[in-house]
Amino acid sequence: MPKLESITQGAVPMVEMWRGDRLESVHQGHAVVMRANGEVVESWGRPEVVIYPRSSCKMVQALPLLESGAGAGLSAKQLALACASHQASALHVGMVTRWLADLGLSDDDLRCGAAPPGDIAERDRLICAHAKPCQSHHECSGKHSGFLTVNAHLRGGPDYVDPDHPVQRAVRDAFEGATGQTSAGYGIDGCSAPNFATELQGLGLAMARFASAREGVGDGRAQAMARLRDAMMAHPDMVAGETKACTNLMRAAEGRAAVKTGAEAVFVAILPEKKLGIALKIIDGGIRASEAAMTGLLRRYGVIAPDHPVILLLLQNPKVLVCYDAEVI
Amino acid sequence: MPKLESITQGAVPMVEMWRGDRLESVHQGHAVVMRANGEVVESWGRPEVVIYPRSSCKMVQALPLLESGAGAGLSAKQLALACASHQASALHVGMVTRWLADLGLSDDDLRCGAAPPGDIAERDRLICAHAKPCQSHHECSGKHSGFLTVNAHLRGGPDYVDPDHPVQRAVRDAFEGATGQTSAGYGIDGCSAPNFATELQGLGLAMARFASAREGVGDGRAQAMARLRDAMMAHPDMVAGETKACTNLMRAAEGRAAVKTGAEAVFVAILPEKKLGIALKIIDGGIRASEAAMTGLLRRYGVIAPDHPVILLLLQNPKVLVCYDAEVI
Repeated sequence: MPKLESITQGAVPMVEMWRGDRLESVHQGHAVVMRANGEVVESWGRPEVVIYPRSSCKMVQALPLLESGAGAGLSAKQLALACASHQASALHVGMVTRWLADLGLSDDDLRCGAAPPGDIAERDRLICAHAKPCQSHHECSGKHSGFLTVNAHLRGGPDYVDPDHPVQRAVRDAFEGATGQTSAGYGIDGCSAPNFATELQGLGLAMARFASAREGVGDGRAQAMARLRDAMMAHPDMVAGETKACTNLMRAAEGRAAVKTGAEAVFVAILPEKKLGIALKIIDGGIRASEAAMTGLLRRYGVIAPDHPVILLLLQNPKVLVCYDAEVI
Repeated sequence: MPKLESITQGAVPMVEMWRGDRLESVHQGHAVVMRANGEVVESWGRPEVVIYPRSSCKMVQALPLLESGAGAGLSAKQLALACASHQASALHVGMVTRWLADLGLSDDDLRCGAAPPGDIAERDRLICAHAKPCQSHHECSGKHSGFLTVNAHLRGGPDYVDPDHPVQRAVRDAFEGATGQTSAGYGIDGCSAPNFATELQGLGLAMARFASAREGVGDGRAQAMARLRDAMMAHPDMVAGETKACTNLMRAAEGRAAVKTGAEAVFVAILPEKKLGIALKIIDGGIRASEAAMTGLLRRYGVIAPDHPVILLLLQNPKVLVCYDAEVI
């Protein structure tokens, strides 16, 4: 069994919460900035810490969708939705519903489970109609639509979230290829799909590879990486939704970054202009901290202007400070 | 300015989050168990860490209500509500509304600000009626009703949350008396009232004093402590609400503990049978961790049976383990 030290060891303070003139709470973590050749440009804490990337790796989990050819006919919006933790606004749920219909499938074929929408308007609509949320409302339903698309191509059985199912074997292959590591194992994610463990620097390397990929150049994987990354940047609203950090940060970056959050405070960024990948994990799982830390890093790397409103929103709250927004590289 | 080390220094791992066979996240913190004579029975981390108690000290903030005589005519339910972070069910909002009317005041006289209710039924009622939440829906509106009761007695001005207002001066006096410490300063809480800093062991001592107090014995403060503590234990539903940790834990303790949570993961317990006070702070502010840690301590001290359903609810979630639920003292 991995020891307690495996996650706390070497973690450094990253985000401070102040009240009045007093430090009230502190979030510690690990972060790494990498190039596609494996070079660590900067790191805080311990880049070799083993983590579950959770939803931060959805663009990796979507690679088989394009590499297999299964998703050849999908729009950029659909590709962005396949990489999303969406808030189930009418926009997202409508696209999932049409996507499933295109496959000759329905909400019942999803295996993510039902979940209440994060979107306020859709939440209120369901409440006042006395309607229950369906599986399409689950924030991972876009990823699962991608899985079902791969599954239709592979002609696999209906339980596409089984770790031994051809869909998940393809995901594991893509994940281990992108991270350059044999996964130390998997946990079952909130949406029932396996989530493969990796060193943080494996996740950073995968993001650096997404950052360096160019469409029409290299092998199928590199081209899939470029298409998924560009789809995320072209449609930030599909990747999360209004008021969400991923959407806000990608809009602010204006094509200089694709970013993705994950449960338990993992956050990644793909910086195509700089050909850099970033991955971070806050050890206590606090989302407010992973969002603030990523905002600080995007500012540090010049991807978001220091005076952009999203900086004010995520960092200038009087209670939030990030340690490493010192200078721009 | 207090240094970063002031909160992280000496903190120890307290709550682990597991997924599959892997440790995914860790919460660190400080905790202390005390007697009313100042003896530290047990501690983890650093009992002298200076914290804001936030809402965990509402029973201390309510002391002037009884010590001044202002709240002589209040029911035990009202006293419990004065110590509450309630979820604004119809039960809580109705009592606040009647309490204000009894004072010849209204929702407009509160200074806590409006907030959406935590209670699902009340939330849904407001949404479907297209109604906005009022100040009575704020989880601190019971505490503020107590402040207004003291204010009516003192004939103070309407801005009773001003740190220099007679109401808050009385609160500070009670707080410093109960904790045995001169407060290092205050921060403004989410409900606009000042929240006074103390060492964690000051908060633990205050809880031990609440635990040792007996109604009809000792000075006015001791009697006020006994009445407030007994009111909380008699009406766990008034202190928080259905599904909330404070209510669940007090029901499970069946009169052997009054407990109270606070923002940024502070949690206290008053154990009258054992005459012990407990105070803990998770340094990252994670509420899931403070709830789990307090549940573990209540189990450790024999206040809640190891096989009680609330233990399963708050600790046996496969993702949550508490370090110190080893043996019962």
